[in-house]
Amino acid sequence: MIRAAVVGAAGYAGIEVVRALIGHPAIELVYATSDADAGRRLADVYPSLLGVTDLVFAPHDLDAIAHDCDIAFLAVPHTAALASAPQLIEAGVTVFDLSADYRLADPQVYEAWYGVPHTSPDLLAASVYGQPELNHNALDALAAKRADGEAVLVGCAGCYPTATILASAPAYAAGIAGVGPVIVNALSGVSGAGKGLKATSHFCAADENVNAYGSTTHRHTPEMEQALSQAAGHAVQVVFTPHLIPMKRGLLSTVAIPMAADISLDEIVAVYMHAYEPSPFVTVLGAQMPRTASVVGSNNAQVGFALDRRSGTLVSSCAIDNLDKGAATQAVQCANIVLGLDERAGLTTMIAPVV
Amino acid sequence: MIRAAVVGAAGYAGIEVVRALIGHPAIELVYATSDADAGRRLADVYPSLLGVTDLVFAPHDLDAIAHDCDIAFLAVPHTAALASAPQLIEAGVTVFDLSADYRLADPQVYEAWYGVPHTSPDLLAASVYGQPELNHNALDALAAKRADGEAVLVGCAGCYPTATILASAPAYAAGIAGVGPVIVNALSGVSGAGKGLKATSHFCAADENVNAYGSTTHRHTPEMEQALSQAAGHAVQVVFTPHLIPMKRGLLSTVAIPMAADISLDEIVAVYMHAYEPSPFVTVLGAQMPRTASVVGSNNAQVGFALDRRSGTLVSSCAIDNLDKGAATQAVQCANIVLGLDERAGLTTMIAPVV
Amino acid sequence: MIRAAVVGAAGYAGIEVVRALIGHPAIELVYATSDADAGRRLADVYPSLLGVTDLVFAPHDLDAIAHDCDIAFLAVPHTAALASAPQLIEAGVTVFDLSADYRLADPQVYEAWYGVPHTSPDLLAASVYGQPELNHNALDALAAKRADGEAVLVGCAGCYPTATILASAPAYAAGIAGVGPVIVNALSGVSGAGKGLKATSHFCAADENVNAYGSTTHRHTPEMEQALSQAAGHAVQVVFTPHLIPMKRGLLSTVAIPMAADISLDEIVAVYMHAYEPSPFVTVLGAQMPRTASVVGSNNAQVGFALDRRSGTLVSSCAIDNLDKGAATQAVQCANIVLGLDERAGLTTMIAPVV
Amino acid sequence: MIRAAVVGAAGYAGIEVVRALIGHPAIELVYATSDADAGRRLADVYPSLLGVTDLVFAPHDLDAIAHDCDIAFLAVPHTAALASAPQLIEAGVTVFDLSADYRLADPQVYEAWYGVPHTSPDLLAASVYGQPELNHNALDALAAKRADGEAVLVGCAGCYPTATILASAPAYAAGIAGVGPVIVNALSGVSGAGKGLKATSHFCAADENVNAYGSTTHRHTPEMEQALSQAAGHAVQVVFTPHLIPMKRGLLSTVAIPMAADISLDEIVAVYMHAYEPSPFVTVLGAQMPRTASVVGSNNAQVGFALDRRSGTLVSSCAIDNLDKGAATQAVQCANIVLGLDERAGLTTMIAPVV
Repeated sequence: MIRAAVVGAAGYAGIEVVRALIGHPAIELVYATSDADAGRRLADVYPSLLGVTDLVFAPHDLDAIAHDCDIAFLAVPHTAALASAPQLIEAGVTVFDLSADYRLADPQVYEAWYGVPHTSPDLLAASVYGQPELNHNALDALAAKRADGEAVLVGCAGCYPTATILASAPAYAAGIAGVGPVIVNALSGVSGAGKGLKATSHFCAADENVNAYGSTTHRHTPEMEQALSQAAGHAVQVVFTPHLIPMKRGLLSTVAIPMAADISLDEIVAVYMHAYEPSPFVTVLGAQMPRTASVVGSNNAQVGFALDRRSGTLVSSCAIDNLDKGAATQAVQCANIVLGLDERAGLTTMIAPVV
Repeated sequence: MIRAAVVGAAGYAGIEVVRALIGHPAIELVYATSDADAGRRLADVYPSLLGVTDLVFAPHDLDAIAHDCDIAFLAVPHTAALASAPQLIEAGVTVFDLSADYRLADPQVYEAWYGVPHTSPDLLAASVYGQPELNHNALDALAAKRADGEAVLVGCAGCYPTATILASAPAYAAGIAGVGPVIVNALSGVSGAGKGLKATSHFCAADENVNAYGSTTHRHTPEMEQALSQAAGHAVQVVFTPHLIPMKRGLLSTVAIPMAADISLDEIVAVYMHAYEPSPFVTVLGAQMPRTASVVGSNNAQVGFALDRRSGTLVSSCAIDNLDKGAATQAVQCANIVLGLDERAGLTTMIAPVV
Repeated sequence: MIRAAVVGAAGYAGIEVVRALIGHPAIELVYATSDADAGRRLADVYPSLLGVTDLVFAPHDLDAIAHDCDIAFLAVPHTAALASAPQLIEAGVTVFDLSADYRLADPQVYEAWYGVPHTSPDLLAASVYGQPELNHNALDALAAKRADGEAVLVGCAGCYPTATILASAPAYAAGIAGVGPVIVNALSGVSGAGKGLKATSHFCAADENVNAYGSTTHRHTPEMEQALSQAAGHAVQVVFTPHLIPMKRGLLSTVAIPMAADISLDEIVAVYMHAYEPSPFVTVLGAQMPRTASVVGSNNAQVGFALDRRSGTLVSSCAIDNLDKGAATQAVQCANIVLGLDERAGLTTMIAPVV
Repeated sequence: MIRAAVVGAAGYAGIEVVRALIGHPAIELVYATSDADAGRRLADVYPSLLGVTDLVFAPHDLDAIAHDCDIAFLAVPHTAALASAPQLIEAGVTVFDLSADYRLADPQVYEAWYGVPHTSPDLLAASVYGQPELNHNALDALAAKRADGEAVLVGCAGCYPTATILASAPAYAAGIAGVGPVIVNALSGVSGAGKGLKATSHFCAADENVNAYGSTTHRHTPEMEQALSQAAGHAVQVVFTPHLIPMKRGLLSTVAIPMAADISLDEIVAVYMHAYEPSPFVTVLGAQMPRTASVVGSNNAQVGFALDRRSGTLVSSCAIDNLDKGAATQAVQCANIVLGLDERAGLTTMIAPVV
């Protein structure tokens, strides 16, 4: 068994990594850290885990992790991984960082959007962006490096970028997308705003309400642009507007993409079918639009389409679970690839509720 | 007191017109029809009205309405008003039609999107589109006609078009919008799908879920295009994607509009401030995005903006109540104007819940 | 116009008093205090009020209130009114206290349940418990005192006690209830837990969940026992279990009452019909159970019944809005009575949403 | 692998049995029947299953089931199993009936509450009530019979009875409960009302609302009385009031039990701890109240307590998933026992969401 730590395990993404690892056939969770909850049983903080695990939150002790673990998942706020990741890598621990610190290839873009300089640009240069459907080859290359004994780093994709990439990257990669900005409207459940107490996450503020926020300024914008530009081979601009909607989990990204030329919906669907043929987690629905309820609690993504042929605009919509495919289970999927395991290991028993 | 009928009063829009008229100082509700519920007290079907009104649902009897009423609100499915409206108008009853039958000026567009020929094109030609912020002058002209003793017809705007028009028409009217399709993503509470029992309105299907539907094919598309083209003075294309989200009421339309030239957010806000200066029901929030919870249960609309200057894209978001500003109270607002009353009559006591 | 202050106007109960007073025909809101939000417009904190009021939050300045106002509503945490109320009364301001400080007639019971001594027992002795359906006569007597120029104090009832009293007091007053504890199970929307940020009010904790809390220890227990004992003329024990359920507003109290003797449901309904005959706000539904959605946003209460004749147990269920009939509008109802106004003044336009 | 059929697999309970069997190590799902959806893929009706199973709904063909399957789960409306179960048993298929047809030992009680005569009283007499924590011995005895080659029948417990039994049976079995009716107030998510379209399951009716229904007349009442009387060894009366609350899944039963004598909470907790010591699925929380969110999607139950020593009343609250421990996974648990498998087989990977 590969021994794993989850750093920041008491947050929503961290505890979901814990949950995903509990049933994993090849990874054993040995460390789950939380400074605030250190010493308490995970199940006392999250009673869903009563009868499931007796693990106790440990303090954030990187030396202990380095001593005991082969891999670590960092489920920490951005900037916190800037310091932790290099230390763990140096100690030979392969790292899957769920924070934003190792997602943007250009440190200047990081500084521009996150307001702090990037303190480990070399490690950033060696890291791979962890969105497996976009970046499987790079993750495979990392697996080879690790097989040679090197500790490696994956900067796991953000939730909005994951759904947006899945909805739009194949159109750019196939060259059927045209010039002009991509208009991304995304809708997230409230868990996307985290466990911290804030006025906008109060039940009475979030229930029976929807509003846009962070339009054009949200930090996931450069991450989307980087991914779509990589797929397209040229710069792509994204106009991104997220909305918070009254549900706990689930994320939908509905993307309007200008087409390069007149094209039929069938041809578009064929492009996506081809792109996702190797992926065990993405289902192409065709002309049917995906429901977030069909994917919550799982690593699955579903993508559907509509085409406005008059204006040459493709509307592509992708549903994921913001904490799973958008964070925790996608990190496990990355880990499976980098560790040379079956990509699906531990993830197939996580099925969205049928009701 | 002006004597009013509500036809189709047991549906969601109809009963909300009833609720709005209960406190109206100048309009008296004398008829509320429902074939299915005829003979039952409104309060027995909608217990919110217990202690509020003892009115009983009457059958759909246009002769009786023509005999007893000055005005009628038609809260009926599309095509049902094609027959009723002419009969009422002929009998001297001024009609506010909440169905889609008298919204589209071109009968061929109606036939193309609704699948049936328009059977009263002359009346359609004389009717006015009932979105007061866009069409106040035309409604004022109708008021003059009615003052001269003529029965007139208002084809009240749909819910998605109302929010979308409020979010975008001023940019087109002022000439700051540029070429290219408008990308409209709208989110509606489940009451927008009506009172009828359908699988998608089942609590277990709608709760904790979001999905797009009817993208590029929804019947409100030509209504939006007609309104924005009227404002712009040239044809505007709309790519419209509605979503159903887990809340009872409220509607948000988030619109991406290509700007004609480089322009600041302040200049844009000034355009909207100027446009809505005469309107008692629209609040321009500036760089803050509106919340649907702030307007539900009222005739109010709130509009906010973000500007992506890199791509020259304005993101404008408008929040309304789908059943009120999107249907019932907007019809009452139209009635107030056409009847020569204070535009706000009966509508100021309807305030969105503060919590 | 009677000039009113709302102290603690930024909390959920306080802002709802504000909302109720905005349309009041005889009371003018001149002061709304909030130390945290002083200087900000109410509408900036609660955007529902945009276009409705331009009032600005004032600091908590009792001298200013005493100088400018005839009456004050205290929407403050318990113990805060212990000090404020005497000062205002002394200055001639009639006080409607929404806190728990003047509800329990026995200062020792107050100390036992709230953990602090009651510092103004004389004022407590002169105050009246503000649950109008139970205590109309005492409130009328207060009105006479005030008409004689005396400043008076009403200790407005709590939310759970209000619904529980309405569900059960007539059975005790009529002598049809028997010996043995009353089993009260109540369900409240999350706004009952207040605006403060706490883990249990986070959307992700409250949504799609229910749990009991404070069973047998909730501070509303002695308030219920006091009211039912007053109605019965002898001591009544209450076993009270509240639950938080995933809705913003609304409160249901379902009460199991042992009957004194065999009795039919019709006879029981007749007892309640008779008891509530003078009350404009309580509807007796008979054998039909009330829905909270039918009363939210209003001062209305609805009561329904089931009878288990085998065991001689009456199940009585009452629905109210926790912030309105359970706090804010009931305080205004008390104010109407004490000020000699129509009991319904300002409250009839607040109708629960029909959808 | 044991070959299983699910009859009525398109309903909420049926499809949840399907979901539970998908990951089962010893039971293979080979038949899932639905007359309405026959010929369609399960995943087309329930898109959560896309990528999970390619199974197609079969028509209700008992001969085919008898030919191909060792066991059958009947997820059908009451009365439908009266006919199907005997036919399957006769053909040698062991049956787990999720309907109400084989729960009540006395056919006259069945007829009194369900309004139809019981047509297979002999089979009823041989069947066992499927609530494993109450009836493990009887299920073990059935396992022995089946091991001897006999087809056997389990009448699986209802959702409300399951939670109520778990909350209260140990007190009766231990003799600490006293005389007088048990007051049961239970709260269920809307899925408890089934997949059928009805006005009360419409999102706009169920959301932001709670109401009691079926108080004292709900058909689960005799089932609770039978179970508690069995535990007590004498007749126990139940006053049962269910409520529908705005969540998809989850069920809480809060039970007020008169104690026989003065007793401490610690002693009570010890009684329950002892009773559930052998059960892998029930967690006794002690003085903490359970949350439904901690058990949804799993076969787990959590129980907590409060004691009103003044009146000698125990308040016991149990949280389960209405479709899982209340129906589908409890049926699988019964099957595990009757088939001689590990009681937990296939059920441990179903963990409630941590967020």
